[in-house]
Amino acid sequence: MRYLAGEPHELPGNRTNLGGYHARHFLFTVAAGVATLTLNRPERKNPLTFESYTELRDLFRELAYADDVKAVVLAGADGNFCSGGDVHEIIGTLTKLDMPGLLAFTRLTGDVVKAMRACPQPVIAAIDGVCAGAGAMLALGSDIRFGTARSKTAFLFTRVGLAGCDMGACALLPRVIGQGRASELLYTGRSMGGEEGERWGFFNRLCAPDTLLADAQGFAASLAAGPTFAHGMTKKMLQQEWNMGVDEAIEAEAQAQAICMATNDFHRAYHAFVAKEKPQFEGD
Amino acid sequence: MRYLAGEPHELPGNRTNLGGYHARHFLFTVAAGVATLTLNRPERKNPLTFESYTELRDLFRELAYADDVKAVVLAGADGNFCSGGDVHEIIGTLTKLDMPGLLAFTRLTGDVVKAMRACPQPVIAAIDGVCAGAGAMLALGSDIRFGTARSKTAFLFTRVGLAGCDMGACALLPRVIGQGRASELLYTGRSMGGEEGERWGFFNRLCAPDTLLADAQGFAASLAAGPTFAHGMTKKMLQQEWNMGVDEAIEAEAQAQAICMATNDFHRAYHAFVAKEKPQFEGD
Amino acid sequence: MRYLAGEPHELPGNRTNLGGYHARHFLFTVAAGVATLTLNRPERKNPLTFESYTELRDLFRELAYADDVKAVVLAGADGNFCSGGDVHEIIGTLTKLDMPGLLAFTRLTGDVVKAMRACPQPVIAAIDGVCAGAGAMLALGSDIRFGTARSKTAFLFTRVGLAGCDMGACALLPRVIGQGRASELLYTGRSMGGEEGERWGFFNRLCAPDTLLADAQGFAASLAAGPTFAHGMTKKMLQQEWNMGVDEAIEAEAQAQAICMATNDFHRAYHAFVAKEKPQFEGD
Repeated sequence: MRYLAGEPHELPGNRTNLGGYHARHFLFTVAAGVATLTLNRPERKNPLTFESYTELRDLFRELAYADDVKAVVLAGADGNFCSGGDVHEIIGTLTKLDMPGLLAFTRLTGDVVKAMRACPQPVIAAIDGVCAGAGAMLALGSDIRFGTARSKTAFLFTRVGLAGCDMGACALLPRVIGQGRASELLYTGRSMGGEEGERWGFFNRLCAPDTLLADAQGFAASLAAGPTFAHGMTKKMLQQEWNMGVDEAIEAEAQAQAICMATNDFHRAYHAFVAKEKPQFEGD
Repeated sequence: MRYLAGEPHELPGNRTNLGGYHARHFLFTVAAGVATLTLNRPERKNPLTFESYTELRDLFRELAYADDVKAVVLAGADGNFCSGGDVHEIIGTLTKLDMPGLLAFTRLTGDVVKAMRACPQPVIAAIDGVCAGAGAMLALGSDIRFGTARSKTAFLFTRVGLAGCDMGACALLPRVIGQGRASELLYTGRSMGGEEGERWGFFNRLCAPDTLLADAQGFAASLAAGPTFAHGMTKKMLQQEWNMGVDEAIEAEAQAQAICMATNDFHRAYHAFVAKEKPQFEGD
Repeated sequence: MRYLAGEPHELPGNRTNLGGYHARHFLFTVAAGVATLTLNRPERKNPLTFESYTELRDLFRELAYADDVKAVVLAGADGNFCSGGDVHEIIGTLTKLDMPGLLAFTRLTGDVVKAMRACPQPVIAAIDGVCAGAGAMLALGSDIRFGTARSKTAFLFTRVGLAGCDMGACALLPRVIGQGRASELLYTGRSMGGEEGERWGFFNRLCAPDTLLADAQGFAASLAAGPTFAHGMTKKMLQQEWNMGVDEAIEAEAQAQAICMATNDFHRAYHAFVAKEKPQFEGD
């Protein structure tokens, strides 16, 4: 992937631009610091394949080096988010694999979520319609989720004879909606509706289907116009402190915030405040 | 306990059946893969005693080997769930114990929750009326909680001069209802009502008192008809990932799910899908 | 600080009384076991300064030894809780510090939260009006939060070019309101309203502005009249079990509760119950 991007290695410090990246298994555009990644097989509600998992993993890994992307919107085409792993292309194949092959697959899908959590850009999922299986995990692996009232989110692994522990679900979902509600969704695979998801804290807000993508992009743009180095630190520490003790987390934040206080954006904010102006952040 | 069950050691692999088990300190029945355990001293709102704690511990430990139980319903007789440790039989005795004796008791009660979390069967608590003290902890140690509007759940340890840290409350309750709400309940010992408990995520649903037990049994039966080996893995990983980092949890799930992909239930689901039939899971 | 309190070192066991303590950077009173600490620079909405951070740190540390304080109310004067670090006195100075100086500051503010979490007294925050930045962290570092409908709580670090990881926010906030909602507040710095905060579990209850302080003090007084040794153990274990596994937490609680069973308050509660009287707890 590092050698697939438009013009790699041209920027100092091993930085790259992703604006010129031509995605093969989904749509990918970059505008004003916001990358929009759209799963785009609408005739099957945007399922994932071995190839799209791989490209997602590589793209999210590459985002760690991207100079031109400050926030990411993850969406699906034509009124659905993602129907998860394609039953024919993925599940059929998995039934024929040996154990090393199975583990290679579950590690691949897990690596997508690891890469989503590791890239410094906040990821905003725009979720309409079907959001199922691995698709629900892409939503859960995002930082922020905008939904619609008609969205249906199902961690439906159990429906295909599997466990609820897929791509980090048993770790992430309890921290978002609580252990009791997460247990029910993971044991049953039932759909969580939009209103329910908002009430439980899965969705940060519900939008009209017509404005969902624009709302998510507008939110992403506002983050992209902010102190993006600091945003990356916020994301890193949310991850880093996941299983620290409270005192250790506080010390970790003392160090992380001291780093941010040495950035230009902190100084810009102060001088703008003194001048009674609105600060212009530049992400450094 | 291993030698108390109906016909132990008759099944291969050290498996046993609990259908023939005659409980001494509560009611216990097994039907269609669902065990129903009913606390049954209704004249005192189903308190716990040294003997019932011990039998609960042993029974939940035995469930790890049970071949005929795929889900558990935990209920109380006659409109109350459980009034907790009996004041006369337990608290009176505790005031006379030395420190090793006290610790033996707190370890016994804690072992009940450990055994509930360690058995592979999902535990569904059906909670009506009084649910107090150790009774509230049996509810909290369950995977799923069905309540009623009139249920009153109180972690009332503080009312008897004790701390809120009992049987795992300070670990489990914050993950179910959030740290702030848990702190209030544990410091004050006040009752949480049914509606409040549903709003906070303590209850998965509220039922009419008349249908509560049947609703819980029906839910349990639907889980028992599912891929129960996978359900056991879901439960194990919810426990296992409790204090892992996110990346470590994702790797742990990659391994756990790869194991589930090698089960027959996964293959059954795929073949049923291809044949446009409903899968029949068998738990292997 | 240990030598600043009214009459230190006069009590056995290195205990002290804080009733005579004359605070310099906020108001501090002790009545009937409840200390009320009021941030009091209302003309600027009660901002914090280097000096008030330092005194807060020292006072909360001293509370570990205080004999006469059993619960703490943290409030702000004149309709606002706290506007956070003073922009002129703190942020202006920070822009001129070198890295060791920056880290000394972030450790100072973090130490305030560490001390709030380490003192045995439950801390009840009474939050009206503005609750911003480090002020929001004082609220979050408390055990219980009473708010008002008009309160505005903002983790607005990002607005001054900094990260959301400040004084433990990325550890504490997700456990109180869930990971998704916490992420939004920390990335955007937007205000959380009172109703929203109650719905999300940030506020334990909303009060009328007129009664807020009295409500918080009344709640604190009821805790102060309870088994305060046990309350201190509840607080300790909520902290201690933060990142333990479930089984380890249950064992830790078995030990902690066995200690509480050896207290006089436990015996008092039992004997009062037998005599059909209300127990009088004394905190030993």
